[in-house]
Amino acid sequence: MDDAKKKKCKVRFGPSGLEVEVERGTVLLDAAHKVGLYLSSVCGGDGYCGKCKVIIDDGQFQAKPTGLLTADELRDNMVLACQTKVLSDLTVTVPSGHTLETGRILIDSDAHRFREMKGDPNAKGGVGDPNGEGHGAAFAFDPLVRKVYVEMTPPSVQDHTADHERLYMAIRAQIEAPIMQTGYRILQKLSGILLSARYRATATVGHRGGTTEVIEVDAGDHSRRNFAVAVDLGTTTVVAHLVDLTTGRTLDTEATYNSQLNFGDDYVRRIIYAEENDAFDEMQNRIVKDLNNLILALALRQRVHLQEITTVVCAGNTVMIHFLLNLDTRRIRREPYVASAGFVPPIRAAEIGVQISTRGLLYCLPAVAAYVGSDIVGGVLATGMFAQPGISLLADIGTNGEIVLGNRDWLVCASSSAGPAFEGSGVRHGMRAGAGAIEKFTYRGPGCFEYQTIGDRPPAGICGSGLLDLLAELYGGGVVDRTGRFLEDHDPGLMYGQDGWQYQLVPSDNGRREIALTQADIDNLLRSKAGVFAAIRVLMDATQTRREDLEAVYLAGGFGNFLNVQHAVTIGMLPDVPIEKIHFVGNTSMAGAKMTLLSREALQRAEEIAASMTYFDLMSHHGYMEEFIRARFLPHTDLTLFPSVQDKKKVEV
Amino acid sequence: MDDAKKKKCKVRFGPSGLEVEVERGTVLLDAAHKVGLYLSSVCGGDGYCGKCKVIIDDGQFQAKPTGLLTADELRDNMVLACQTKVLSDLTVTVPSGHTLETGRILIDSDAHRFREMKGDPNAKGGVGDPNGEGHGAAFAFDPLVRKVYVEMTPPSVQDHTADHERLYMAIRAQIEAPIMQTGYRILQKLSGILLSARYRATATVGHRGGTTEVIEVDAGDHSRRNFAVAVDLGTTTVVAHLVDLTTGRTLDTEATYNSQLNFGDDYVRRIIYAEENDAFDEMQNRIVKDLNNLILALALRQRVHLQEITTVVCAGNTVMIHFLLNLDTRRIRREPYVASAGFVPPIRAAEIGVQISTRGLLYCLPAVAAYVGSDIVGGVLATGMFAQPGISLLADIGTNGEIVLGNRDWLVCASSSAGPAFEGSGVRHGMRAGAGAIEKFTYRGPGCFEYQTIGDRPPAGICGSGLLDLLAELYGGGVVDRTGRFLEDHDPGLMYGQDGWQYQLVPSDNGRREIALTQADIDNLLRSKAGVFAAIRVLMDATQTRREDLEAVYLAGGFGNFLNVQHAVTIGMLPDVPIEKIHFVGNTSMAGAKMTLLSREALQRAEEIAASMTYFDLMSHHGYMEEFIRARFLPHTDLTLFPSVQDKKKVEV
Repeated sequence: MDDAKKKKCKVRFGPSGLEVEVERGTVLLDAAHKVGLYLSSVCGGDGYCGKCKVIIDDGQFQAKPTGLLTADELRDNMVLACQTKVLSDLTVTVPSGHTLETGRILIDSDAHRFREMKGDPNAKGGVGDPNGEGHGAAFAFDPLVRKVYVEMTPPSVQDHTADHERLYMAIRAQIEAPIMQTGYRILQKLSGILLSARYRATATVGHRGGTTEVIEVDAGDHSRRNFAVAVDLGTTTVVAHLVDLTTGRTLDTEATYNSQLNFGDDYVRRIIYAEENDAFDEMQNRIVKDLNNLILALALRQRVHLQEITTVVCAGNTVMIHFLLNLDTRRIRREPYVASAGFVPPIRAAEIGVQISTRGLLYCLPAVAAYVGSDIVGGVLATGMFAQPGISLLADIGTNGEIVLGNRDWLVCASSSAGPAFEGSGVRHGMRAGAGAIEKFTYRGPGCFEYQTIGDRPPAGICGSGLLDLLAELYGGGVVDRTGRFLEDHDPGLMYGQDGWQYQLVPSDNGRREIALTQADIDNLLRSKAGVFAAIRVLMDATQTRREDLEAVYLAGGFGNFLNVQHAVTIGMLPDVPIEKIHFVGNTSMAGAKMTLLSREALQRAEEIAASMTYFDLMSHHGYMEEFIRARFLPHTDLTLFPSVQDKKKVEV
Repeated sequence: MDDAKKKKCKVRFGPSGLEVEVERGTVLLDAAHKVGLYLSSVCGGDGYCGKCKVIIDDGQFQAKPTGLLTADELRDNMVLACQTKVLSDLTVTVPSGHTLETGRILIDSDAHRFREMKGDPNAKGGVGDPNGEGHGAAFAFDPLVRKVYVEMTPPSVQDHTADHERLYMAIRAQIEAPIMQTGYRILQKLSGILLSARYRATATVGHRGGTTEVIEVDAGDHSRRNFAVAVDLGTTTVVAHLVDLTTGRTLDTEATYNSQLNFGDDYVRRIIYAEENDAFDEMQNRIVKDLNNLILALALRQRVHLQEITTVVCAGNTVMIHFLLNLDTRRIRREPYVASAGFVPPIRAAEIGVQISTRGLLYCLPAVAAYVGSDIVGGVLATGMFAQPGISLLADIGTNGEIVLGNRDWLVCASSSAGPAFEGSGVRHGMRAGAGAIEKFTYRGPGCFEYQTIGDRPPAGICGSGLLDLLAELYGGGVVDRTGRFLEDHDPGLMYGQDGWQYQLVPSDNGRREIALTQADIDNLLRSKAGVFAAIRVLMDATQTRREDLEAVYLAGGFGNFLNVQHAVTIGMLPDVPIEKIHFVGNTSMAGAKMTLLSREALQRAEEIAASMTYFDLMSHHGYMEEFIRARFLPHTDLTLFPSVQDKKKVEV
């Protein structure tokens, strides 16, 4: 091997200041990943999405030619990180908005509530609020894994009960556990611990299926130190909450990019990558490492020992759960689109390398199908729609758009694969809800508008809620017509750029790059919203649900904090129901995971939900494509479906 | 180290011809063990039981002085193997009767029967016989571990069910399994197997508590190759039966000495040894090795792959089960005599090194207490006494004498620790039921008697049934009085030997050593039978059971094949009930283990039996000692308890 190739180069990434040493010839995207910097990469490093732009401030590099950079960008020494090799020490600037500050990743509030469990000493006023914050169900406080402190009378001539049975009796005096199990290693050490502790010990018991397993026994009372981590395993981000299982309180939250991002922004691309490169182990290793990093960060900050974390509950789309467990994902992307497991039994976290208590348990919420994952089941659980007499609609807009419709008697669901435009993908200046993202936009009239960025930072792009605002306000203001075309002479903000007509929000200036919404962006957004609405129509038609039957519409996803839900109606993404019926519910996947780790009943309910939900495969549904085409208008070809939008337009006109 | 000490010496044991090479200075008992020769050793090699006698034919040795050898024996170059060191190549003869031919270890017939399971394709006329052979219960044929061949419709656009749930549905179509579990490793490989096998696979499912675990999945149909091993884990011998789980038939049996014998004949001594030498791991290793040797022998002979053996079910006394699992035995020998676990949950056999199918399960029948083990629960199960309206009595005479009394409404039990005299221990020429053992004895009158040996071999000692005969016949013939004293002038067979008066069965002759019953032997036998009868009395008194209430009396244990059960009444060991009510039932521990592996229902019943049985601790029972003293007479101080014996004596007199 050539010695020159083996030369080490130092790469410094600004503004974070992160540094990494790599071999000469390393691809810059890989160098960034190595230091924990996750650059957006839709195409998985193939060089055609143009998302991984960085500026080379200093040093030698070799960049492949690309048509994805403007002349201005090339003059600024901007490159695509995935197409650039490191040839010497480098100083690189990552434009703001191209990485995400994890603190901005949408996390759910502790909106869910639990009934006070009768006679439970740990439950402190966790009274249920069935109508609170849009969540229609309350569950008994009864964590999946509990620490039960038991003081047993030691054996005597009058009472020969064996240690193992004595422990069971003591546990059963405190919790309901008709069927119990104990692993061999615990059985073997049990007597030694009980003897040394004078029969005062803490049993850690976990619920597995219909049984209660004694997963650990320790001398003395450790019942106040029992923690769990709830995980929302997203395609783009992984969010973790540390929960105190004795109080039910969330202590801290942490989030990171899914480090599989280097292999593609969407999961189908990652499956292809894993298949082509035999990289399923690598996929698992990465997501497990992400999880461990989150858990470690939470534990260190809250001074919790990893051994005190007894539970991990994961919710996520079916592919992410499969990657986590290294289950077969190959048929998820091929007809007939089948998962390896929808109902994943609890496993020992250590079996996949997740570092919590040695014998701690890892649970996954159940999934409905390959494209309706446990994150959606978590959403149904968290919204409480499964328990309501009236019909509710849940739309979770992320990489895909999953729709659930139903009530306490029935639930139907579907997944719209119309693309993640509202997550910023396929939109030229789209980005996720990170610092500098334009999250709010108001149109005041020709040449006059206002916007707001996350963190009041200089604008870096447009996130989901901003895109929704733009589309709705520009349509309302007459800047785009019902087909989504710019009416070119209507507003001075409209100008002809490299990609044709665009609406300019931020002009290019010294040190500031242009931000605009292009015609192609609008087409992508319309496809996304049309996919969502067509799915809703298919489900409503199939169940003969009328618009006026909808008691509540829940919009979930990572849009940002200032979501104008009315705009989701205006553009024809959600059905036209009174505004007070529409609720933005944020990260319901996380909310569902947290409800579950705090309540055995919630897990049972989640399993019932997943088992009873009817899945509609839209790809093989005869009416879907027609609905999709009709929904690509603003708001729709059939205006009678959107009377309020019509009225508004009339008033304005 | 001295080179001379390291010198290797070859030891040859006749008549077996087994040879072993050991270091100079090795104790002869250890050399014998090394080659798989289990010499009787009650004291665990301490030199005071005098059971490990061997004859040195040739070679140099160093023997410690002992008073346990007669002048004749010393002249014959007889030594105690535990007190003798090997100094050169040696040729040794092991007297017959001092090792046991494993083929003679008592094994149970397939006396138990199973109800034909409705719709079960494997059940072939296994019709229950509720009254057959003294067993009052029949169980559904429903093995603890089953192989279920499933042909599933592959997934399609119309049916997206995930592989894991598809498998569960297919299994549930064939067997009752409301709560199912799958381990991570199976989950991970499941899809690959189903795909390659076109959804035709064999699921191995095992019952654990209330759940059904998928322990293995294989491509294709292997449902006809499912085997189990039932084990009677005795203090002295380990017996294993290979059972075909598709038919319920026993294919083969094998037995060996418990290789812990070197550490003492009784288990209390072994616990002491293990405590003093930190040898609990060694105890486990030995018994596991014994088990593996038995399983391997059975598998080789029957051409069964170890991977096809999915189940092991063990019954045994509590200490043996604890040694097998390396659970804490120390408190079993100390007040308050507590076991570590009575109800041992099923474990993976591989966890303790038992070599069957990688994920195969090992079950232990539940125990009642430290001194009433799962062997006794197996006995209650096998006799069916737990299901009868009438009251039955079970006496299992082995190293201890365990007694169970009861019916379908209640069960009480106790353990008499009066010593294993009927197993030949504590009796000068006592031996277990091996080749050459005098197993039958008839007294014809002064100077006239007959005996029969096992295998018609030259007499080597007296086994349990022979001792029972001797005591009963000599008492009936007036050679011993009611206190067990020899009436010295009554019979010419009575003579004064080195241990006082004795009844000579075989005179010492050229090449033949004397066999006799001594006064001390009779005292030991009386103590044993008194212990058993006193325990029976305590249980009958406590439950207000009268002799005439007893519908059946079951005598279990390794007495031999020609047990005269009437003699057990004559000497006052069993209550005086009509002879047709007394049944010799052999190895009920094995019978119980086999019923269990063939029927989930049997295991449930065993657990109910163990949980409901009331244990009487005789050591702390106020009336036991008095009963014991009264029972040391022949048949008893209170002759009204034994009217038939009285009548017989009267007729004879």
